[in-house]
Amino acid sequence: MNATKPSLRPSALFSAAALITLLALTTTATAECQIRGTGDLGTIIERATGSVLIVDRTRKERLARIEGLGDLSHASAVYSPDGRYAYLFARDGGLSKIDLLCGRIEKRIIQGGNSIGGAISQDGKLIAVSNYEPGGVKIFAASDLTLVADIPSTAIAEGKNAKTVGLVDAPNQQFVVSLYDSGEIWIIDMLNPQQPKITQLKNIGKLPYDALITPDGRYYISGLFGQDGLAMVDLWHPEAGSQTILAGYGKGEAQLPVYKMPHLEGWAIANDHAFLPAIGHHQVLVAATGSWQQRAAIEVHGQPVFVMARPDGRQIWVNFALPDNDTVQVIDSETRQVIKTLKTGKGTLHMEFSPRGEEIWISVRDSDAVQIYDTRTFALKATIAAKSPSGIFFTSRAQQIGL
Amino acid sequence: MNATKPSLRPSALFSAAALITLLALTTTATAECQIRGTGDLGTIIERATGSVLIVDRTRKERLARIEGLGDLSHASAVYSPDGRYAYLFARDGGLSKIDLLCGRIEKRIIQGGNSIGGAISQDGKLIAVSNYEPGGVKIFAASDLTLVADIPSTAIAEGKNAKTVGLVDAPNQQFVVSLYDSGEIWIIDMLNPQQPKITQLKNIGKLPYDALITPDGRYYISGLFGQDGLAMVDLWHPEAGSQTILAGYGKGEAQLPVYKMPHLEGWAIANDHAFLPAIGHHQVLVAATGSWQQRAAIEVHGQPVFVMARPDGRQIWVNFALPDNDTVQVIDSETRQVIKTLKTGKGTLHMEFSPRGEEIWISVRDSDAVQIYDTRTFALKATIAAKSPSGIFFTSRAQQIGL
Repeated sequence: MNATKPSLRPSALFSAAALITLLALTTTATAECQIRGTGDLGTIIERATGSVLIVDRTRKERLARIEGLGDLSHASAVYSPDGRYAYLFARDGGLSKIDLLCGRIEKRIIQGGNSIGGAISQDGKLIAVSNYEPGGVKIFAASDLTLVADIPSTAIAEGKNAKTVGLVDAPNQQFVVSLYDSGEIWIIDMLNPQQPKITQLKNIGKLPYDALITPDGRYYISGLFGQDGLAMVDLWHPEAGSQTILAGYGKGEAQLPVYKMPHLEGWAIANDHAFLPAIGHHQVLVAATGSWQQRAAIEVHGQPVFVMARPDGRQIWVNFALPDNDTVQVIDSETRQVIKTLKTGKGTLHMEFSPRGEEIWISVRDSDAVQIYDTRTFALKATIAAKSPSGIFFTSRAQQIGL
Repeated sequence: MNATKPSLRPSALFSAAALITLLALTTTATAECQIRGTGDLGTIIERATGSVLIVDRTRKERLARIEGLGDLSHASAVYSPDGRYAYLFARDGGLSKIDLLCGRIEKRIIQGGNSIGGAISQDGKLIAVSNYEPGGVKIFAASDLTLVADIPSTAIAEGKNAKTVGLVDAPNQQFVVSLYDSGEIWIIDMLNPQQPKITQLKNIGKLPYDALITPDGRYYISGLFGQDGLAMVDLWHPEAGSQTILAGYGKGEAQLPVYKMPHLEGWAIANDHAFLPAIGHHQVLVAATGSWQQRAAIEVHGQPVFVMARPDGRQIWVNFALPDNDTVQVIDSETRQVIKTLKTGKGTLHMEFSPRGEEIWISVRDSDAVQIYDTRTFALKATIAAKSPSGIFFTSRAQQIGL
């Protein structure tokens, strides 16, 4: 473990403004600015058209469509603490600040060449983005998207730095990120935004490709593409380094071709156990939290992609990779039985619970629809039209660690 | 255990409108309605003056003062899912709906004679109030405060029903409440608002005086004034009834006079343990969740009142009863050591964390101030003037179960 100040790129601080392409978009409002609460707003990514819907979770209706947001495959959003602004991370390096009350783009920059997600700091004042190209993390002021810190990742070749993945926010004004090519986990402490303090954990495992942080913000877990097992860091004890958990977890066990590496942010922690997608198996695995030993494997309909716990932990909702991506299953976290199978339709890509868990919103790409289910009765309560919807993100994420 | 429909008072449904005194207050706006997010708003109870401050958590400033809210000793607030409206429960039976964006009272009713708190349903559409007089629970539409259900508690004498306490919301559109005089816990299922379904758990222990629900909404725990121990219901298994946990907990152990029965909603669940205020001792007790066996007792400065976990569970903040109510202590949940003692001032009554835990707001009645501390550095970041402040409630509660 090394605790170092960041080795900023030469003259990064001077040329930052020049490096960033500021797209001074003419932001024509698509609606009047509204006097309304923001706690029940959300965004739906329309990946094929580079647009985003702003939705009202209470009325289950669309408020506005924002267009011109770039390549939104794998796009995600975080929210300002007041719930008014969404920060959208696009695959093409675009970072957009969207005003949900006025239905318009507040600001948009192209901050990198190839980006894979971002996070907002605990205090809501910093936006961090993890980039494939150029490899590293850039941190911006949430207020106006000016560059605060440019942190290149480990150099892996002439002019090339490790891809960064699995970026999350953590307690104590920290970000945590995995370095794909160099097998590292970095903890970035932004207590002093002008002097990021970086703890570099090396040799955490081969090719971390995604990561999650537990809901309490304590454990950071990276999936490994290059070997079996997972890398885990106890953020209460970074001095202990990273340890390998669930050593049998991975492609080595696969009996079937792997159609899609599962999303780790889809892990569910419920009832003192983690429920996680098996790789290449039609199974959801159950591991005890703490010991991180596998306890059970639940047979499901296909290869799981997202495995998500209802906020009260009683239900686990699972969607699947091709050719089974027309189905969602619900597992009782106590009995570990599949209690419901829903045929949602082809291209069932993403799920988001209402913050207190009474509803789940499910995006069904090939139906151009988001379906809203009651999680108690499993009744379909409403459908919202959306163009090839993928990610769904509610503003309640602003009030939680690691989302 | 009995599962029954409520025995509504005779003609309760007919005379409801007449029974309720609708105070058609002239709601003069104290400020222009604002176009702004509501995720970082909050209210501070000014108990001596019957007023409430609306505050901005980001700017750490007061936005408006709302007056004429009645007897606000032990008052508390819940929020609509959009974060725009606060529902304030006053001791004198007043129920007020406050518009935070416009800084005014939207509606106010006197719904009972002597009230001790309330809750908002999982879907945000129902407001429940627990009353001492008349003993029972009344449930109102969140939209306009019209009566939806009037549920009298168990009759204990001619024209007298048990006091209700410890009312909380629970998953699956339920409320849970304790009946002080009759030693019961009732689970009120509002799936069909016109036909509340009530599960009555009897003989749960003597004189339950307060209660809490665990953050996942699974365990409901009542403190008992009439005997040692606590009553716990696993809401996943109400058919199992109530069980007594922590049998040695209570006044029976007290070595010192009990100056104030501690608040149970101040329990902290962190790091797989519950941290709870000892009664009559200068101790915070530590019990394992699950087994609910006591594991340790941490010596502290005085008789604890609120014992609250920072949202990430790493720190436990404690305030104290007279004569030690000028102090706050911070415990590390892992080492169980007191790591900080703050002299906040006389009348330190209540604490509220920012939802991601970087700050804590502390009301100091005798200083007419709310102090805002950084939980990492313990630095005092700001102070807000308030008249005899007590409870502090942030709108992020709208997004959580049981708050």
